[in-house]
Order: sequence, then structure tokens, then C-alpha cells
Amino acid sequence: MKGTEGTTVREEDRRDDGPRRTGKAVDMCRWLAYSGTPILLDSILYRPVHSLIDQSLHAKMGVETTNGDGFGVGWYVPDKDSPAVVRDIGPAWSDRNLREIAEHVVSPLFFAHIRASTGTAVQQTNCHPFRHGRWMWMHNGAIAEFHRVRRDLALSVEPGLFPYVEGSTDSEMMFYLSLTLGLEEDPPGAVARMAGLVERVGHEHGVEFPLQMTVSVTDGVRLCAFRYSSQKRSRSLFYSTRVDTLRSLHPDVAFLREISDDARLIVSEPLGDLPGAWNAVPEGTYGVVQPEGDEMHAFEPAA
Amino acid sequence: MKGTEGTTVREEDRRDDGPRRTGKAVDMCRWLAYSGTPILLDSILYRPVHSLIDQSLHAKMGVETTNGDGFGVGWYVPDKDSPAVVRDIGPAWSDRNLREIAEHVVSPLFFAHIRASTGTAVQQTNCHPFRHGRWMWMHNGAIAEFHRVRRDLALSVEPGLFPYVEGSTDSEMMFYLSLTLGLEEDPPGAVARMAGLVERVGHEHGVEFPLQMTVSVTDGVRLCAFRYSSQKRSRSLFYSTRVDTLRSLHPDVAFLREISDDARLIVSEPLGDLPGAWNAVPEGTYGVVQPEGDEMHAFEPAA
Amino acid sequence: MKGTEGTTVREEDRRDDGPRRTGKAVDMCRWLAYSGTPILLDSILYRPVHSLIDQSLHAKMGVETTNGDGFGVGWYVPDKDSPAVVRDIGPAWSDRNLREIAEHVVSPLFFAHIRASTGTAVQQTNCHPFRHGRWMWMHNGAIAEFHRVRRDLALSVEPGLFPYVEGSTDSEMMFYLSLTLGLEEDPPGAVARMAGLVERVGHEHGVEFPLQMTVSVTDGVRLCAFRYSSQKRSRSLFYSTRVDTLRSLHPDVAFLREISDDARLIVSEPLGDLPGAWNAVPEGTYGVVQPEGDEMHAFEPAA
Amino acid sequence: MKGTEGTTVREEDRRDDGPRRTGKAVDMCRWLAYSGTPILLDSILYRPVHSLIDQSLHAKMGVETTNGDGFGVGWYVPDKDSPAVVRDIGPAWSDRNLREIAEHVVSPLFFAHIRASTGTAVQQTNCHPFRHGRWMWMHNGAIAEFHRVRRDLALSVEPGLFPYVEGSTDSEMMFYLSLTLGLEEDPPGAVARMAGLVERVGHEHGVEFPLQMTVSVTDGVRLCAFRYSSQKRSRSLFYSTRVDTLRSLHPDVAFLREISDDARLIVSEPLGDLPGAWNAVPEGTYGVVQPEGDEMHAFEPAA
Repeated sequence: MKGTEGTTVREEDRRDDGPRRTGKAVDMCRWLAYSGTPILLDSILYRPVHSLIDQSLHAKMGVETTNGDGFGVGWYVPDKDSPAVVRDIGPAWSDRNLREIAEHVVSPLFFAHIRASTGTAVQQTNCHPFRHGRWMWMHNGAIAEFHRVRRDLALSVEPGLFPYVEGSTDSEMMFYLSLTLGLEEDPPGAVARMAGLVERVGHEHGVEFPLQMTVSVTDGVRLCAFRYSSQKRSRSLFYSTRVDTLRSLHPDVAFLREISDDARLIVSEPLGDLPGAWNAVPEGTYGVVQPEGDEMHAFEPAA
Repeated sequence: MKGTEGTTVREEDRRDDGPRRTGKAVDMCRWLAYSGTPILLDSILYRPVHSLIDQSLHAKMGVETTNGDGFGVGWYVPDKDSPAVVRDIGPAWSDRNLREIAEHVVSPLFFAHIRASTGTAVQQTNCHPFRHGRWMWMHNGAIAEFHRVRRDLALSVEPGLFPYVEGSTDSEMMFYLSLTLGLEEDPPGAVARMAGLVERVGHEHGVEFPLQMTVSVTDGVRLCAFRYSSQKRSRSLFYSTRVDTLRSLHPDVAFLREISDDARLIVSEPLGDLPGAWNAVPEGTYGVVQPEGDEMHAFEPAA
Repeated sequence: MKGTEGTTVREEDRRDDGPRRTGKAVDMCRWLAYSGTPILLDSILYRPVHSLIDQSLHAKMGVETTNGDGFGVGWYVPDKDSPAVVRDIGPAWSDRNLREIAEHVVSPLFFAHIRASTGTAVQQTNCHPFRHGRWMWMHNGAIAEFHRVRRDLALSVEPGLFPYVEGSTDSEMMFYLSLTLGLEEDPPGAVARMAGLVERVGHEHGVEFPLQMTVSVTDGVRLCAFRYSSQKRSRSLFYSTRVDTLRSLHPDVAFLREISDDARLIVSEPLGDLPGAWNAVPEGTYGVVQPEGDEMHAFEPAA
Repeated sequence: MKGTEGTTVREEDRRDDGPRRTGKAVDMCRWLAYSGTPILLDSILYRPVHSLIDQSLHAKMGVETTNGDGFGVGWYVPDKDSPAVVRDIGPAWSDRNLREIAEHVVSPLFFAHIRASTGTAVQQTNCHPFRHGRWMWMHNGAIAEFHRVRRDLALSVEPGLFPYVEGSTDSEMMFYLSLTLGLEEDPPGAVARMAGLVERVGHEHGVEFPLQMTVSVTDGVRLCAFRYSSQKRSRSLFYSTRVDTLRSLHPDVAFLREISDDARLIVSEPLGDLPGAWNAVPEGTYGVVQPEGDEMHAFEPAA
């Protein structure tokens, strides 16, 4: 992305000052999105040092260091618009089916998510990623005091979409609100409108800082990632340095020769131990990974 | 109950003409409610011929002959207002924890339910019984075309109760609508108002026969059971004959000497093979099992 | 296979006279094996009338009509010797992850299995298919009185293989006995020696008819299927008619034009409703599906 | 117990120098055993600061700080010899059924266990406590290199007991070896013989330090707890100070007035924050909690 790539991760970006474990229906998680050369999921999910699966047991950053309340993986395959989404309610670290899939599925675009619930039911319909048609969505963060605003937000979901809301998380609600507000035509605009709506409804209920989010959303072609919080202290988010830059920094790393220049990872928490590989997404920012060139812009909720 | 006790179950009562397996969010199940002498759950759940647990694998009546999409058991204990509710998503027939509980828990009032989903997610929050405070609720049947009316019904739930709706079933929605409409003060009245609301909203959406239900609800003292459907072809429901009558019919049955005169079972489908033990609850009827004497009345939805 | 293809399934082949539900550790199941053109799993697992997934809820043949105690699917992909094996303990009919995988995975050779346990624990390590290296195995039937012979059979497993036995089923034990007895060099010979061993040990323990099996085993290239029982009343097994023969019988069926001449299905119970599509594997017979031409031979346990 | 009660826990007792996470089939866990006044399970399992359920997410001591690979609780009730045992494979911290049971079940003697697997399958039959008749057993630790010695140990299990071994853990094997070696007549002697056997077989396979264990076993009357390791660096174990001593130390603590003088807890890791409440079980020691007075003795494996 157009930014200050290759910089070291600074200590303040390692902070993750999300809301504390209080109230109901607060999700705090870790996630990863990949776009690039078709690759075995295993290469990203399990093989790196401090992989996402390792993080399910022992994350370094974040409020919750264990993310054992379910997981999900979603991937696109050729000739199918709609991605496969496999989710389960146990910890990722011990899930054999996830490992089997990771070792046998190749995909050019996939999401993976590990969940730490702090009250919402641990059930498949509350696991990320969420899917609607060709779209996938995953989230780390929370709508503050969700139990108080949930009804008002639910009423804002387009009635035709309402029956598709299956679970009880703030994350899925954010997805359906974004779909209601135009996600399929204009992802950044729709997410901005969703964030504006969540903040307005939160403020109406006396919530000072209604929204805390890092979100990833895709239609299988473009991948968008958002980092924002009402308090301006968003949960961590990182994107990988351009592969050609990394190759020149690390000519000996075989893995880098196997993937294309346009391969890109966006993660809650860096994987691996390659110096220069990760760049913090700045506070209040969104990025787009797409065939016509990646972009990064300021993100502001829309009224 | 005051009715025609001790009669044989007639063939037409064995019919169970519920809606077919179509559409989303239709629950078709089997359930059992017990009130009487404190008894080991096992005595009722597992030991009878054609027990509820047997029915989970091979029910005789009903649209679905397998009820393998989760189960639940709820029981009251002394010194606790709120009942214990244990639910899980696998089939009851192979669940070891259910058997352990049944073999070690004694209770004077308990519910058990086995579920056949026809589309709604198989998850703990969709399993019966549902609980709110000291109240428990379970259901067999369906709100027809629930996906079309779900939003309107959700809006009718009292906002303060809305956050407690955890799952996505019509059954839980009926419970929270009944709570909204006065269940804690007047159970039969509240259920009648709920049924009236469901029918009105269904008719507004062009649904001819909006409601099909057998419901059991209790606060730990009184137990109410309802049999009703808009089409007047309700799913089967039976209540057990008075224990003193059964004892005189079957002086040799040891089990009958162990339970008190006021013991009462209400079931979707008869258990055991004791002649004269079961009586069909008539179409459009509700019964109340209570310390001051059981009653049976006509049931009519309230406008 | 070389046999009497294209014949109608006769009523006596529809019988499935396996041992009754008695004793511990008896598995009775349904399975399916496919070899041929790379195909979406969904085409075989879900789309046919009376598909395997339908059979999980309502099988027509067999002792158990519900197969809701877990399932598994195993498939080979290019560039990987070892197959993916995904197994879970709930019923197949409601498993969303299985459906996701089926709708997004293409494979030239796969197994699927649905389980009805009659006492052995319902756990992932007891679900089929079982895998060892590049080999996959699945089974329908039982070692009679398995709890009495289990120890002696366990001692016959090669000590180096012993630690790989993870579950408690007779089916997995048969697999490791076959591996011990040369499966990797000579599948039909090894299975014959395994069957001979099981019969000898059973007879030593006074069991009249020790073995009942239909088995499928593959290394990813050759697929072998066995139908045998000590009592000569084996559980049902069918293989599909040659695709070119079916095409000339049914020139209008589009699906038949999409698959290659060498595509072959072996199933516990016929799928679909295409006349002439299925042929009973005779009692005491095994077949081999392989690139150099399919074969069918008599099967006899080896002393 | 007769020991140096009321002493503070010293820092060296907080060490937990068990074997590292290597190899297969190594269980590392946390557990708790209670004997005394009949008490609501919740009082011990959930209410204390740093409760066992808290430890499932964040243990302070031990090799594994997360114990999310299943849990179990076993309790005795009046009029039943055999205890109830409820076990499940998800993390204890989010399990609603465990909480329901804890809030509604009263027992004078119960076990609770949270598991951290390092390779053995996460399945119900691998969860503690294990039960045989009226006996219950749970374990924290490991048989080193279990996959290498498992077969030899399995052969040492009495053939009549062999079919009862359902899972694949070292812990369950230790239980059935102890039953084989006289557990029902002489628990300390049988456990000593089991430990001697495990060490002998381990040494035969070149394992330097074959055994690491803290074990609790009971028949519903006497409760025995063992702390031992071949390396003399056993995993931590603590017993609670006599209730009358604690009462005089803490006259204001209401909870202490509700339980009887003979109430006793044995735990992997102290609960609560009451000074003087916990005493380390010394290295190579076992204790017996029993109606005729508690005892503590040196423990030595028997040849």
C-alpha cells in the first residue's frame, strides 16, 4: 500500500487498547486476510513462527491473550462466486479439521479468524467470517454496550436482509448494516456510513465511545481493511510489505520466491519473524488490496 | 385434569398434521413435562418403553421421525428459584452427559425436549427449554413462514427483554412475546395474546395458518400446557391419568406405588405401554397442573 | 467391473442382514467411494435423490435407518500423497461445514461415510474414513463380540503401528491389522489375512460368526472394495454401471456427459433413480477400480 | 492432614517443572478435589478468586497456562454408589452446561478437572475424571514417551478390565493399571505398584524419568491424593488448612462458618486469596482424606 512500508513496528502500535471485558456481546479476536498467488492455506495459517493458530493459544497483543472461543476460515476457489466458509466453536489450536483443510486447500484469497468471546454465545453462527452471497466479513473489536443498542441497530437493517442475521454478535450486525448501507456498490462508503450509524445510536444511548473495530471485507476480487475506533485508540492492524521489497531485503528466503509481487497479508498481529515485513495501518485508516494497485486512505465515519 | 381420563388414545389423536418440512426456521420436536413426587430424571427419560430418548431416534408420530438436532433438560431444585437448564446440540440418544445427569438428579418438576430442526441453526441457543428468571418454556410446532414475520415479531418484544433473545427460533420468540404480554402474571392470558399476535402478523403477511404449537411453560410451581393450531389440526399432546386411578387399574405396577397422587406427565407422544395411562389433550385446549388441583380449559387466541 | 452390469437391483440384494444392535462397539453405517473425473463432492454427496446425506437421516436398507453418530469425508488432491480427512461427531444432515466443503472441493477420488454407533463412543477418532500415510479405509459392519476379542486383536497389531490406533472401533482395528498384514503391498491379500485372523480369534472366543464387513480401501490410485461376512449374509454393496453403458441407456442425462468413462461409484445403498445404474456386488466378492481396468474376484479369508 | 499446616506457599512450590510439551499423548492439566459438608459445586468451582474455571483460561503455575482442551466434573449423591461424571471437549470457561450444573448440584465429594492436551485427541473419553464402578480418578502430569510404552502398559492391564479402556490417554491407562494392581483393596499400595510398573517399563525403553504425576482417586468415602515424579520435581499440589484453624485466623470470613471442620480441598494450584489457607503437599507424598482422620505419608513406587 502507499504508506511508509518496511518500517519496524513501533511499541505504541503494539498496544491494543480496546474496551475491557465487560458487558455482554463483546467480541475480541485475531484475524488474517490473504490475497495473492494461489497458496496452500497451511503456508500462512500454521507454518509461520507465531502463526495465527499459535495466537489462538497465546496472543502477544490485545486484551485477550487466549482466543479459544471458535474460529473460521473462508476461501475462494475458481469457478465459484461464493466463498467456502468453515467455522467451528472449539479452539483453533486443537482442531484437526482446520488443519486438514489448511493442508489440502489452495486459494488466491482467504480469511481466517480466531475468536475470544466475552459473553456472546459460543456458537457457529457467531463465528467469523460471515458471508452473504459473494461477500465475506470479519471483525476484531466491539460495539460498546451492544446489548443496549442492539435493538435499534437491528431495526436499521434492511427488512429483506433481516432474516439472514443468524447469530447474536455485534460483528455480524455491522456486516448487515454495511450491506444495508451499500456495501456491494461502495465498500468504504458503506462502512463509513455503518460506523456513523453505530456512533449516532451509541451516543443516543449515552455511550461515549461506541465503536472499536478492525474489519476486513471482500467480494473475492477487492479486499478492504479498516482500522478505526471512536476513542482513536484502535486495536492493532498490520499489512505486509511489498513482496519485491522483501525479496531484496531477504534474498535467501525461499518462500518469498514462490509468491507473486502482488501478494498481500493483513493481520491483527504480525506473523513470522522477518524484519521489515510488517507495517502498522495508521489509526483511522482503510486500505484496499486490488488488481489495479493497492491504496490506503483516511477513514472517517459518515454522518 | 378434569376431562375424560383413562380413555384409550384414539387413532385420530395419533395424527400429527403439522406443516411440512419447508421454509426456514421451522422447529418440529418432542417434549415431556413432569410434575409430582421428586423423582430421578432417569425414571421418566430413559426407563419407560418408547421413552423420550428412544423417540429421539425413532418417534412414531409426527412429521419428523428423527429428532437428532439437539436436546435440553431443565429441572428445579430446592432452595433455587431458577431452574438448571442443560442443552446440547448433538442427538440425545448418544449423549453421555444427559444420561449421567438423568441418573443422578432428582427433581419435583422438570422439562425435557428433543429437537428436529428444518433449517434453523443447530446451536445451543436454539435448544429448548428456554429460561428467563424462574420461568421455563418449550415448544413443538412452528410459526409458519417465520422468516417473513420474524422482524415484525421481534419488534413486538419489549425492548428491555430484547437483549435476552439469544437464538433464532420461532419458539424462543414466542416465549419472549409471551413474557412481553404478561406471562409472569397470567400465563394462559399471555399465551393467548401471543397466539393472537402471531396470527395477526401472519395474516398481514398473507400466511393462511400462522401458528402450530404445543407449548409447556412453568414458573416452578404451576405447569401450563397448550395445544393449538390456526388450522385446528394441532400436533399431538397427551397427559397422564391420575396416579390413583392408574394404581387401581394396575395394582401390580411397582412404579405407581412410588409416586404421589398428584404426579403428572404431559408428553408429545405417550411413553411406556400401560393401558389407560394416557389421554389426548383436545384440540384448542390448555391445562394447568398445580397444587390447588389440575384444570383443563378451552384455548382461544386473544385479539 | 467384470460382472453382470446393468441389471436391476433384486429385492434380495436390498436385504441387509447384519448382526442386530447388541453388545458394545458395533458399527453399522453407510458409505460411498468415488473414483473418476475430478468432480465437485457436492455432485455425489448432496445432489442425487436419496443421497448419502439423505441416508444419514433416513436410510432404506440396513439395520439402522438413522446414521447420525458422526461422519467423515476424505479426498485426494493433486500434489499431495496423503488425503484430506474431515470428520465430525454430529449428524451429517445438519453439518454446515460438510456442505461447505462439498460445494467447494473438487477431487478425482474420495470417500464419504456416515456412522451409526451402537455403543462405541461418538468421537472424532471413531469416525471413518481412517487414514495412515497415503491410505484411507472405511467400513460398514462389525466384528461380533468385539469387546471380547479386542485385546487379542490389539496384540496382533504390529508394535510400530500400535501407537497410531487412536480410537476404539473394530473398524480402525481392522485397518491396522490389514496394515500389519501387508496392506501396502497387496491389499486383497492383506484384507483376506485380516479377515482370517478375525475369524480365528473370534472362533477361539466361541463366536460363531465373527465378521461382517463391507470395506473400502485406497492408496489414492487403486480403490478396492470388499463384501464379506462369516455368515454369508453380508451387508449390501453396489457398484455403478460403466458410464458409457449408462450414457447409451440415458442419452438425455446431462450429468453422464460430464464424467469420464472410467468414473465409478461404490456404495452401501444406491443413490439417485437412474434405471440400470447399480449392480449388487455378490456375496464374498471384492472389486478393484484402477487405471489398468476394473476387476472383480471372489473373496475368501486367508488362514 | 498431619503436616506443617497454615504455612505460606513458598516460591519454590510455585514452580512446576514437569516435562516440556514434546512427544505425543502428554496431558498437563489442573484439578481440584473436595470432601466435606455437602456444598454447591459453584462455591468452589466458580466463586473463589482465581477459581479453577479462571485457571482454564489463565493458570499461573505450570507448563501450560491455558487449559482449554476439555474438562470434567464428577460428584457423588446420596443413595448412589457410582458418581455422576460430566465431561466435555470445549474449554471450561465458556461452557454453559458446566455452570448450570455447578449452580444446581450439591455434593459432599466431588472432582473437577481442566485439560491441556499436547497431542492426544481432544475427545470426551480422554477427559478426566475417569470412572470405574464407584471409583473416580484424575491426573495431572504425564507418562514420558507414552507412545513408546503404551503397548507394553496396555498388555499389563487385566484382560477383564481391558475393554473398559475407552480413550487414549496415559492418565486413563494409569487408572486401569492401578485397578489391575489392587486399587479397590489398597489404594496407596496399588498406586505405588502402578508407579513402579510405569517406571520399570519406561526404563526398559530407555526413558530416564518415566513418570510425572499428581493423582486424585476416591471411592466416594476416602479420598487419596498423590504427588510424585521420577525426577523428584513433581507438579504442584496443595491441600487446604483445617477449617477450624482457618476460622480462628479469619473470624470474619462467612464462608468458613458454613462448612464443617472436616472439609478439605486438594488442588493443583491455590484458589482464593485467604492467607494461610494452603499447604504444599511435599515431593513424594500422598495424603488420605477420610472420616477417621486425615493422614499424610511418604510415597515410593513399589517394585
